[in-house]
Amino acid sequence: MERGDVMTEYLPSYVEGAWWTPAAGADRSPAGTPVRDASTGEVVTTVSAEGLDLASALEYGRTTGQASLGALTFHQRAVLLKKLALALTERKEELYALSARTGATKTDSWVDIDGGIGVLFSYSGKGRRELPNSRVHVDGPVEPLSKDGSFLGRHVYTTLPGVAVQINAFNFPVWGALEKLAPAFLAGMPTLIKPATPTGYLAEAMVRILVDSGLLPEGSLQLVSGGVPALFEHLRLGDLVGFTGSASTAESLKAHPAVQTGGVRFTAETDSINASVLGTDAVAGTPEFDAYVRQLVTELTTKAGQKCTAIRRAIVPEAAADDVIDAVRARIADKTVLGDPRAEGVTMGPLASTAQRDEVLRQVRALQDAGGRLVIGSTDAPEVRRADGATGPAPDGAFVAPVLLRFDDAQADAVHTVEAFGPVASLLTYATTADAAALVGRGGGSLVTSIATHDPAQAVELATRIAPFNGRMLLLDRDDARSSTGHGSPLPNLVHGGPGRAGGGEELGGIRAVLHHMQRTAVQGSPEMLTALTGIWHAGATAHSEGRHPFRKSLAELRIGDRIASATREVTLDDIETFAHFTGDTFYAHMDQDAAAANPFFSGRVAHGYLLVSWAAGLFVDPEPGPVLANYGLENLRFLTPVSPGDSIRVELTAKQITPRETDEYGEVRWDAVIRNQDDETVATYDVLTLVSKEPAAEPVSV
Amino acid sequence: MERGDVMTEYLPSYVEGAWWTPAAGADRSPAGTPVRDASTGEVVTTVSAEGLDLASALEYGRTTGQASLGALTFHQRAVLLKKLALALTERKEELYALSARTGATKTDSWVDIDGGIGVLFSYSGKGRRELPNSRVHVDGPVEPLSKDGSFLGRHVYTTLPGVAVQINAFNFPVWGALEKLAPAFLAGMPTLIKPATPTGYLAEAMVRILVDSGLLPEGSLQLVSGGVPALFEHLRLGDLVGFTGSASTAESLKAHPAVQTGGVRFTAETDSINASVLGTDAVAGTPEFDAYVRQLVTELTTKAGQKCTAIRRAIVPEAAADDVIDAVRARIADKTVLGDPRAEGVTMGPLASTAQRDEVLRQVRALQDAGGRLVIGSTDAPEVRRADGATGPAPDGAFVAPVLLRFDDAQADAVHTVEAFGPVASLLTYATTADAAALVGRGGGSLVTSIATHDPAQAVELATRIAPFNGRMLLLDRDDARSSTGHGSPLPNLVHGGPGRAGGGEELGGIRAVLHHMQRTAVQGSPEMLTALTGIWHAGATAHSEGRHPFRKSLAELRIGDRIASATREVTLDDIETFAHFTGDTFYAHMDQDAAAANPFFSGRVAHGYLLVSWAAGLFVDPEPGPVLANYGLENLRFLTPVSPGDSIRVELTAKQITPRETDEYGEVRWDAVIRNQDDETVATYDVLTLVSKEPAAEPVSV
Repeated sequence: MERGDVMTEYLPSYVEGAWWTPAAGADRSPAGTPVRDASTGEVVTTVSAEGLDLASALEYGRTTGQASLGALTFHQRAVLLKKLALALTERKEELYALSARTGATKTDSWVDIDGGIGVLFSYSGKGRRELPNSRVHVDGPVEPLSKDGSFLGRHVYTTLPGVAVQINAFNFPVWGALEKLAPAFLAGMPTLIKPATPTGYLAEAMVRILVDSGLLPEGSLQLVSGGVPALFEHLRLGDLVGFTGSASTAESLKAHPAVQTGGVRFTAETDSINASVLGTDAVAGTPEFDAYVRQLVTELTTKAGQKCTAIRRAIVPEAAADDVIDAVRARIADKTVLGDPRAEGVTMGPLASTAQRDEVLRQVRALQDAGGRLVIGSTDAPEVRRADGATGPAPDGAFVAPVLLRFDDAQADAVHTVEAFGPVASLLTYATTADAAALVGRGGGSLVTSIATHDPAQAVELATRIAPFNGRMLLLDRDDARSSTGHGSPLPNLVHGGPGRAGGGEELGGIRAVLHHMQRTAVQGSPEMLTALTGIWHAGATAHSEGRHPFRKSLAELRIGDRIASATREVTLDDIETFAHFTGDTFYAHMDQDAAAANPFFSGRVAHGYLLVSWAAGLFVDPEPGPVLANYGLENLRFLTPVSPGDSIRVELTAKQITPRETDEYGEVRWDAVIRNQDDETVATYDVLTLVSKEPAAEPVSV
Repeated sequence: MERGDVMTEYLPSYVEGAWWTPAAGADRSPAGTPVRDASTGEVVTTVSAEGLDLASALEYGRTTGQASLGALTFHQRAVLLKKLALALTERKEELYALSARTGATKTDSWVDIDGGIGVLFSYSGKGRRELPNSRVHVDGPVEPLSKDGSFLGRHVYTTLPGVAVQINAFNFPVWGALEKLAPAFLAGMPTLIKPATPTGYLAEAMVRILVDSGLLPEGSLQLVSGGVPALFEHLRLGDLVGFTGSASTAESLKAHPAVQTGGVRFTAETDSINASVLGTDAVAGTPEFDAYVRQLVTELTTKAGQKCTAIRRAIVPEAAADDVIDAVRARIADKTVLGDPRAEGVTMGPLASTAQRDEVLRQVRALQDAGGRLVIGSTDAPEVRRADGATGPAPDGAFVAPVLLRFDDAQADAVHTVEAFGPVASLLTYATTADAAALVGRGGGSLVTSIATHDPAQAVELATRIAPFNGRMLLLDRDDARSSTGHGSPLPNLVHGGPGRAGGGEELGGIRAVLHHMQRTAVQGSPEMLTALTGIWHAGATAHSEGRHPFRKSLAELRIGDRIASATREVTLDDIETFAHFTGDTFYAHMDQDAAAANPFFSGRVAHGYLLVSWAAGLFVDPEPGPVLANYGLENLRFLTPVSPGDSIRVELTAKQITPRETDEYGEVRWDAVIRNQDDETVATYDVLTLVSKEPAAEPVSV
């Protein structure tokens, strides 16, 4: 443990581009909170932010941080996220070592550390694939607002102009910080991380690696280690708070005037009373039963049950209750070794602190008082495997054995409202699918509910009923039991958060979370103005068809609005016949005059749509080698006016959007294609997607 | 005025499927609020909801209303919206007559009544074009969660299970109710309308027409006329409140525990201190200057300035200030006739009530006290044109003349925070574009800002800076001045709402507002289960390629997963040559072995992408007349593996999504197309869009 020596000092913060610790004056040291090793009770560090100038740190983020991130495009930020992920990967063993002190086993730490790094990789990839290489993101299609096309509407997302203050929970100090940082960073919002005190030293170590990497744009990341009670006094419109923690804390923060009337965005992800439902078909002996039990034990023991997403309510058919209890008991006995995560063979560690342990035991008693019978485990101090391998009591460690309670009355309030944030779940039974759905809803809004059934009808009925009460649902059966990522695992590409008790917020979900850091604004204007604002050519804006063929221009030379307006070509019956026989597409609308005329959309034989698109390519393509490397796709093709023999077509191809890649020698160009007939009617519209070299290469580009 | 006689009675509510008025017992009548004609002060009606069983009405919505709307698909609801719009259109003259009593001129009433009806038409169209014909809406693409394809993620939207309580403002009693009703109805949420007291009689008349039409699904619409102070006590998770009104009322409602901790969704659209910026290029004599002045006068006088979106701050270059004031004064003198809307020639009516008049005058004095100089208009009681055509004072009418104040100190707080909700605006000046942007931001979040400039650079700089402070921006110049729908007009297809002071909510914006009435949930599961839940075939789910060719099946027979797996066809160099010469597409990658090999993506000559797609159609098409009527488009085409001479291709076409049209004899079928080569590598993927008959027609379908 490299940093073990300094850990009894104050834990540093990182603000305004420098490391900061509380001033220990001559008279007195600031009062700090000692933080202890979860297994042994040793003091690891002391936490205090007394004297830190928070207002100044926030203003630094709003100015310096906004400026440095704002100078980068989405893709440039995405590339940095990948580099930051690599920097963390390189030094992740330091984090694993510290993580063990929080009570995390290797597997727990993997979820936190590698899971967190994975979020950065995921956002780096999505940012480059799904966002433009610019600073404004367009939402939805053009909305025509006038008949003559001179007035259009479009929605754009722009970066919120403040700081993203991220208040994290103690259970995932690395993942929790990175899953909030990644979308904020990608959106261009500077981050101020406020970790939870019990595990803040692990977040600090992670931030230190990021700072040491030298990759962070100035002001893009700050860290406050320690309590900052006046935080919300300093927030204002344009700032955002992302909170993870208990529902009660979320409520009190949300009530602050900065949020209520000041326009500060507040999003919360709180622990909730999540459920896992066993289908009536999933009786003992079925793969679904086994998968259900495996998952339930995993959720009880991983991270010692300290997960916002853990299963708190196992909702099973009355007839299956005993089988489930027996199977869970057997699997815990078989698989679970409670102890110091540094000891060989330990599969389940302590809670994060003895305070947490005492709180969990208090909640278990509340559940017992409300009618929960302990059917697995006990609230007595457990024997554990200590770091030296010996087994025995560990009164200074925060250990709690896995506990399952059974409620005979599934309607008891407590089972749906009391959370023991540890290795604790309750089992309750249902009669009909509608009952099961109602029980899930009694939780008042959950982060996640899983359903184990192989019966699609049952799955659909249950899922449709409970969806509005859940942020995520997992449908578990024999087909996905092996590949399932598990009830308790939020994924970067799926939304994380839930309604009501779960906080009412949304995190992750890929680009969705990026957009939560931006403001959506409807913009009305002329095609010219919308083109200027969005960097995307809008039909009706100026186009340039003089000069060189646009396929002869590299990305460095091409401008949106560059256009090739083709010659005209007549379509004959012979052409249609030729194409039909060459392709094998002898659909009657092309081949049989009477049958075609009887079709509601045609007045007689018509040209194949694919003939038109193929000819259009023939009309606009520039055949010689040049910057355009490949046509990699096509989007939004609509055939609007049929083409009859004797009609003529021409095509206009206009550079619509240019997306240079940050890490390749080429980029994407999206072209607006419009095929018209001899009467200027629009025959077809689509977007052509090409790859184009960045530079006018004298020699062919190499990959 | 047909209903004039009954108007001095209590205004009815419509709850639990029946009209309701306060019980006037033997002892006493419930205390009601008298509502008066805005121009004459005559009592129009009395409003009270004393004794109304609100809890029961809400529960009726949650049960009966949810069930009847839930039985319909999005398209069925959309068709009903159109029919409701037609029912209102038929009787709109009744609404116009009543509307005049609220102080609205014909033009004002057109915005309210025809504008409101237009929202229903718009949502009817969008619902059918942009939503599936089912009850669950899918958001975003499939997210692969395992390498083997057995575990996928998808996001779905399901209807919130409660009631949409819609609290409307007095200024647009028809539009305000319909713009909230339309998206809620389309989402499947029952509505409870709570109109504002001063104009509630117009909302009641509108609801009466809807009820009389017999079109409303049971429980889908309720109306509460009168104050319901305990409303929020009865709300719970799954309910939603849509509020329009003052920022201070929004704040107090939002603070209720039902919202703070109960999980009730709350969205607010509040009046805000909107701005209109004149560009430095838009000097007197330019089309932009003229358009700016015209718009400013329109926003001052339409609806007597009682619009949440009206311009409160005219932000102009110092040098242009006098020209703007002169031009505005001249235009008001030229165009504005203040009076009773029932009098000939009147272009501007009174405020909604004398209480509003007094409040507006109070706020004008506050602005004067803060340094605003009256440069146009006066706060004296104006002479107005009365209903009989005579001009004179009207002490019982709520008249205020248009007022423009000038602030020499643009930084004065009051001009950015005090709202006079009437025909009142303030003029302030700026030096640089950055200053102008900062002044806009001082409003603390606005519904809309307009910018008049013909300089794209200036427009982009300003718009980019102010976008995060605005829900909507209008870029006004010579190109769109004639076709512009105006600063003050929210449109059904653009979001309406803004950050901070503007309430922080979002309404309208097409389908975006429908989704605000639904819960987004991430779903994880096998392809089979996601197919069952969404009604959309997911790759990896069961497909049926036995039996009849799927093109021979009508919508009544076709099932998702029905597939045609084609034969294999070899691509020769001759084929490529033939296609190149037939289409004219002689791009070097197809024609020149050496040049093609030098391209980073190809190892030599390759087949045209359009050849492959055309051949695929030849491989899967069934040529004889049948239920498949036309291929109307194609989406998401990606070419993934190049095809070289000697390679073979085959195609699998699988029915992916079936969307019968409610009002046609056919519907859309989306087919999943995958072209593979002889090594089973994926060559191309895309969706084929077809129109297919509903019934197996013996005779050709007629249009």
